[in-house]
Order: sequence, then C-alpha cells, then structure tokens
Amino acid sequence: MSYTYKYPHYSVTVDCVVFALDMVEDELRILLIRRGEEPYKGMWALPGGFVQPDESLHCAAERELGEETGVRNIFLEQLYTYGEPDRDPRERVLSVAYYALVDINAYELHASSDADDAAWFSLSDLPELAFDHSEMIKCANGRLQGKIEYQPIGFELLPGKFTLRQLQKLYEIILNKTLDKRNFRKKILKMEILDELDEIEKDVTHRAARLYSFNKTRYEEKVKSGLYFEI
Amino acid sequence: MSYTYKYPHYSVTVDCVVFALDMVEDELRILLIRRGEEPYKGMWALPGGFVQPDESLHCAAERELGEETGVRNIFLEQLYTYGEPDRDPRERVLSVAYYALVDINAYELHASSDADDAAWFSLSDLPELAFDHSEMIKCANGRLQGKIEYQPIGFELLPGKFTLRQLQKLYEIILNKTLDKRNFRKKILKMEILDELDEIEKDVTHRAARLYSFNKTRYEEKVKSGLYFEI
Repeated sequence: MSYTYKYPHYSVTVDCVVFALDMVEDELRILLIRRGEEPYKGMWALPGGFVQPDESLHCAAERELGEETGVRNIFLEQLYTYGEPDRDPRERVLSVAYYALVDINAYELHASSDADDAAWFSLSDLPELAFDHSEMIKCANGRLQGKIEYQPIGFELLPGKFTLRQLQKLYEIILNKTLDKRNFRKKILKMEILDELDEIEKDVTHRAARLYSFNKTRYEEKVKSGLYFEI
Repeated sequence: MSYTYKYPHYSVTVDCVVFALDMVEDELRILLIRRGEEPYKGMWALPGGFVQPDESLHCAAERELGEETGVRNIFLEQLYTYGEPDRDPRERVLSVAYYALVDINAYELHASSDADDAAWFSLSDLPELAFDHSEMIKCANGRLQGKIEYQPIGFELLPGKFTLRQLQKLYEIILNKTLDKRNFRKKILKMEILDELDEIEKDVTHRAARLYSFNKTRYEEKVKSGLYFEI
C-alpha cells in the first residue's frame, strides 16, 4: 500500500514528557521507553509514535503513551512542535511534544507495542536519548519551572493528601533551590487553595504533621478572578 | 510531479497571529490577509502557508508572513499546533500557529503571494475567518493575557519611548479591565525595568508627560534572578 500526494507531505509523531516526583530520593523522574524498532533501536526515548489519519494529536499522544507504557488517563498538555528538517534520519518527521505530571505511585509500568521496556529515570541522570528527545525534556522542564512560580500545577505530582513539608519539597525539587520554610508556608496558605484535613501523617519516625489536600474548585475560582502568585 | 510514501503523511502549514495596539481607538488589532486561492478564496484569514521541505517551522512562519503582508524581522513565538483531522476541507493539514506583538506604526502592509489584501482588524470586530483561525486568535489572546500578568511582554506593542499612561493603557486594553493608576505606577516602577528619559511628550494637547523606555538588558537579568510580578 502507498500514499501519493501532489506536494511534499510529512510524517507526524507525538512524544510525551511525563514527570513524576521521587519523594525518597528527592528528585524529578522522567518516563522513558527502550525503542524496539529502528532507528535508534535499543536506545531510550520518550514514549510516542505516529499520528493515525483519523485521530487528533491529543488522542495520538494518549494512545501512544498508554500502549508503550501502560500509563493512561492522565492530563497531557501540548508543549511544543519540533520540526527541524533533519531531526529524523529516515525522512522529515514533525513531532508534537506533550507533557504531563503524575503521581509516581499511581501507575504500574507495562512496556508493549514499539517499546521493549519502560522505566522511570532521574532527570539529573538521563541516559543518551534518541532523536531530539533531550531537548524536549529540557523544554518541558523549563515550562514546569516557569509555570510552578505562578500556578499551582505541581499538585498532580503529589498524593491526594500531603504535608506542607512535602509540598515545599516539591517546589524545591522543581525549582532546584532551597526555600525559606516560614515564607513558603505563609505564601502557600495565603492562596487559600489548600484544605486542612482532620488527619495527620501515619507511619513516620519524625513528629507526624498535618495533612492537606488541594482544593481544585477553589483554585479555579481564584484563577478566574485573577489569581497570580509568586513563591 | 508527485510524492509517494509507504504510510499516510500530512500537509503542514504555519499561521501567524500578529497583534498590534491601536492607541487612537484603544484596542488590539490583528493582521489579516484576504485569501487569493481556494479553499475559502476571498475570505479573511491569518497570514500563513505551507512549510517547504528544507525550512524549519519558524523560518516558514517568517517567510509566509513576509511574503503575504510585508511584515518582516519581528519576534515570532510558537503558540500551539492545530491538528484535528478535519480542520481543512482538502485533506489532513496540520498547522503550527505562531504569534507576535508589533508596533503598528513600524510596518507598511504589502499584500502579495497568495494574499489579495492585507489589513489590520479590530480584535473585537473580526470578520468571519477561514479554517479554525478564529480559534487560533482566541488562543493567542489568552496566552497574551496570561503572560502579560507576569512578564513584561507588551513592550513590543509600544514605540521605543512611551509614557506611563500609554503603558497602563496597553495593560488595560490587553487585560480588558481598568487598572488603578497609582497602584499600576508603583508596581511597574518597582520592577526596575524602565529607564526614565530626559524627554517629555511632544505635540500633545494635555500636559506633556515624562517619556520612558524599556530596559531589556535589565529585564533579562531580573528574569534570570527569578523576577515574577503581578499587575
């Protein structure tokens, strides 16, 4: 079977940069797959693949991520489209990159389809990657750092109930800097987007701290009325 | 001549949402072209066109904008990629949208190439547009409103020297709300990204006000050291 056109056409792929937080090692992790096909067979890469004729870009990203890693039903946001003429050794392939933040404990990885393996890698210690995928991760990390300064996007990386210490740790890991505890708490509570729960941490060796949850409805109300904040 | 591929391939276009500020009518304007070719021949649309095999997406956007409107050498930023399977009546065409802010007085429009005409339209009174171009403009406007709250991106819309009244007007037009004069001045001066000039307005009927210019170097230093602000 073949496809003939009057003008040059291009292949289009989607690639997904999925971040998770490792609260034990205090670092961000990225979901990678090992390529089962040429080019770059055997190398690590972002989950992704070709857009089918009848599916939207967003659906293609969700499908490829699910097929190759088993991670499904997550909130993906479009990041950037990579279209340098020589970015793929086969032919001209444009890739629309998406990014997502997930709770690392909520997903069990299952590699299949074009992927031989799927695993979480530390953002600070990534293997050599296929195509321009390192650049995509760098761009997604920049977007994450930029956004978290003025929007509470990091909550998807935490479990539903968390302590303020964990939340501060999340900001410190993403921004790669130490934050003042008192200042951080004051600012984050002033936003009025956290619900203080009637529960404290369990099974911890240190003094158990109060648990909080993220109030998304209140957050969305605040965004509508013009909330912007600075950490 | 024809192009044959083993798998489905797609056409790729770029489209440009170019904003300018009309300081007389106090409104944002959008640069549109009248299509000289089918589909949607005779309708207004965003400047744009097909990506050539040897050019990057960014170069394609610059080239098409220049060819169709005469607007060249401006700062274009990638906005979003539109890829719904049925967004073009001919076949599947993906479009990578770019956006830009320009000083309306700095460019003379010259329609050519696939465009029969080029003109500035009021954002609040746009004609019916070809393809999904209305959606692209809505998305670009949202990005502009979101960004200007925490980054001084609006300066490209002003002449090199401007008054604080003009700058406030710019924010008011983009955000579509009235701002408190004293508060606005306090906040904008506190950012330390404006240079107060030894000049005042000329040829005005009201009391001539001090002129300022945007200090881009200082702004970039501040961004690097973590500046975020809220208007």
